[in-house]
Amino acid sequence: MADIGHILARELGAEQVILRGDERLDDYERDESPMAPHPCDAAALCRTTEEVATVLRLCREHRVPVTPRGAGSGLTGGCLPVRGGVVLSVEQMTAIKEISADDMIAVVEPGVVTQTLQNAVEEQGLFYPPDPASLEYCSIGGNAANNAGGPRAFKYGVTREYVLGLEVGLMGGEVLRVGRRCTKGVTGYDLTAGFVGSEGTFGVITELTLRLLPRPPAQATLLAVFRSVADAGRAITALIGRGIRPRVIELADKSSIDHIRPRSRYKFPETAHAIVLVEVDGDGDTLGMQIERIGEDCDAHGAIDIFAANDPAERRALWEARRQISPALKEAHRYKIGEDVCVPRSAIVEMLARVDRISAETGVPTAVFGHAGDGNLHVNLMSDDDPADPAVMQKLEHACGRVFADAVALRGTLSGEHGIGLVKRDYMPLEQSERVLEWQRRWKAMWDPDDLLNPGKILPARRAACSE
Amino acid sequence: MADIGHILARELGAEQVILRGDERLDDYERDESPMAPHPCDAAALCRTTEEVATVLRLCREHRVPVTPRGAGSGLTGGCLPVRGGVVLSVEQMTAIKEISADDMIAVVEPGVVTQTLQNAVEEQGLFYPPDPASLEYCSIGGNAANNAGGPRAFKYGVTREYVLGLEVGLMGGEVLRVGRRCTKGVTGYDLTAGFVGSEGTFGVITELTLRLLPRPPAQATLLAVFRSVADAGRAITALIGRGIRPRVIELADKSSIDHIRPRSRYKFPETAHAIVLVEVDGDGDTLGMQIERIGEDCDAHGAIDIFAANDPAERRALWEARRQISPALKEAHRYKIGEDVCVPRSAIVEMLARVDRISAETGVPTAVFGHAGDGNLHVNLMSDDDPADPAVMQKLEHACGRVFADAVALRGTLSGEHGIGLVKRDYMPLEQSERVLEWQRRWKAMWDPDDLLNPGKILPARRAACSE
Repeated sequence: MADIGHILARELGAEQVILRGDERLDDYERDESPMAPHPCDAAALCRTTEEVATVLRLCREHRVPVTPRGAGSGLTGGCLPVRGGVVLSVEQMTAIKEISADDMIAVVEPGVVTQTLQNAVEEQGLFYPPDPASLEYCSIGGNAANNAGGPRAFKYGVTREYVLGLEVGLMGGEVLRVGRRCTKGVTGYDLTAGFVGSEGTFGVITELTLRLLPRPPAQATLLAVFRSVADAGRAITALIGRGIRPRVIELADKSSIDHIRPRSRYKFPETAHAIVLVEVDGDGDTLGMQIERIGEDCDAHGAIDIFAANDPAERRALWEARRQISPALKEAHRYKIGEDVCVPRSAIVEMLARVDRISAETGVPTAVFGHAGDGNLHVNLMSDDDPADPAVMQKLEHACGRVFADAVALRGTLSGEHGIGLVKRDYMPLEQSERVLEWQRRWKAMWDPDDLLNPGKILPARRAACSE
Repeated sequence: MADIGHILARELGAEQVILRGDERLDDYERDESPMAPHPCDAAALCRTTEEVATVLRLCREHRVPVTPRGAGSGLTGGCLPVRGGVVLSVEQMTAIKEISADDMIAVVEPGVVTQTLQNAVEEQGLFYPPDPASLEYCSIGGNAANNAGGPRAFKYGVTREYVLGLEVGLMGGEVLRVGRRCTKGVTGYDLTAGFVGSEGTFGVITELTLRLLPRPPAQATLLAVFRSVADAGRAITALIGRGIRPRVIELADKSSIDHIRPRSRYKFPETAHAIVLVEVDGDGDTLGMQIERIGEDCDAHGAIDIFAANDPAERRALWEARRQISPALKEAHRYKIGEDVCVPRSAIVEMLARVDRISAETGVPTAVFGHAGDGNLHVNLMSDDDPADPAVMQKLEHACGRVFADAVALRGTLSGEHGIGLVKRDYMPLEQSERVLEWQRRWKAMWDPDDLLNPGKILPARRAACSE
């Protein structure tokens, strides 16, 4: 086989291709998941759509797998080159081509960091709502490829709702423009929605046309501390039932609180078994009234303490409790797996009880926080032992499998916002029938019949009895 | 060929199948579009998923085309049996299987009338936002198949945003369940989004799991009369820029006003060249303030008259002007075509100017109203001559073609919410490249390789030079 790295270096220029043996290549063989690195032959750092197309054309000609990659901030191994070959990075495609306040859209390249985009549009009085936790370093192409969410999804929806149009490079080098520039449109099949969330297995996103909203003029935040998750759940149900649409409803459990207690300025009482963080936005004059109502609901359902803020610094202080959970868990334990199951809202309290049970029965410490408004729970499983020990990993994986099984048993889903990638691929049959998987394999084969583009992701191998 | 009508009657029972020669069949050979009826062999009135699967199995075995049909309220000929065969009606599948206030979802059969669903969920304090103009008689399966919109889409999005999961019958009789019950989920490819808006060409929807919202406790409505569309456009831009998110922003042009003037209780002045209707919803205490602000924006941009209401009867009176337009146009003219192009928001005023020019140059009377917040304009083209005269139809079609060409030239799209069906199929190449069309043909072939399910819709025939 010809050396694909040198072939690409000849086409793209040597400085755009990292070859095997160059230690910079290490960075392209891993992501933020706990998966081990996977070696590849080369990384192509594309600067233009044409370069993306060139890589996809040459790799198909040479039958070399291609794994697209944005900022590499994924948590599921989705950008790991599991079959080697070429990693196609779009991190250098960082142009914000257009922000139109009149049309309320932005046209951007995939490597733009999400926070950079948000700042740029907010300067013009506009708003791009999706806010994955990694927004300071993840990129918008990866957000679309994985249909990223975040706390504000409760009011504003996920990335899919903001992707109006895409330019994509297909395996073989064809460049396709799908979708539209206007807000509504039902002209033909929704090719765009198919690419969103396909984790770079259908095509490589080279440009996005994004819907924007007007920037909400004001925000206000409330933090309430409860004696139980059940109390917190009832307060959430009450405030949602009022017709108030908070942009954020976050929940954290006792274990999360216990982990942040040492570093928190607020002295969480021992009875604090749940916290709820609610944020509203919109017209400034009406927010005070909304926060008051939400406070009444929390009070009526047994909140121990309630704090409210509309000043940015005070709001940041309230968010601190929520933001510190993940770092506190990482610091307190040697190893942490962060899952993101989603359950119907009525099952949140039961799901938290089941995680406690799994923790008690397996001896794996857990902590749960997440987007309660959506039922999207980040279940963290920790270990203080050496993860290189197979027995340690087995124990964690067993607990993880029980979390997935319980989420599905409660009519939920394996992933609310992280995606499937490599990490959850083999759990897919827990939730989806072999026929549903089979139709997805056909869809994948439509775009990439040789299975060269980000192979080995999302879909588990066909079971022999069901192959046709 | 075996007589498919009798075969189906044997399987489903004679009372569930309308055979050729029965005059009731006429109703299944037309929709609300101006297209001529298309004869079919039989209509199968399915009551269950199993019956749908049986029809799809037998028709595939006998190589008979199947055209699915909901309430038949479509405007694009999407449910016309252009290749004969069997019309598969789901109008008898009208069960609301579940409404869960806790999970904020509904599980329904496709034949449920949209208004019936809305009433049922509102009784439980919930809300299903999509509100196509036909909501009193269209059905939810057709809404999903066509990704229906409506005025409230400006705040709440279209049907796609509310379809969490589907059960579909595929050509050949396989029944597939896709999607989920929880709000968020990125588990595998988004098969659900692919079915939404595919106009019954991928599969027949037999059950829908729909996302609901809490019912907004209060609404308020404002109607403003302007001297020009440009003034109206500036007022809309100003109020959107404030961060207020009205649920509805409707616009109507001078011709629309001239048509409703004779039947309106309000005496529209001769200078009235545009009306804007704005509706807000949410917490009752904050709406008065929002309406006041919106009134100020209209005033600042030259509104001649402004009316506001929050009482249901008064709100209905304000809506009357908007609601009377379509009936008034129909009454005043012998024949009317209603199109639904969508343009980027900045192009709304220019699009209206171009429609006026098309009207002046072709002699075809026009009237434009629609969902200005989204740029989704209903362009009506009228005729007082006999539509049976080919020259009359040719003149209308010529004007229509110019409307589509202008919408696309302004970076808009052929259809904001009606769909493509038969009526706009041959205009598709105006907007989409042959490659984009070709990938859609492949997607269609994935689900229905024999092209038996609702054939002849959406995609124009392959051009010889581009076929592979």
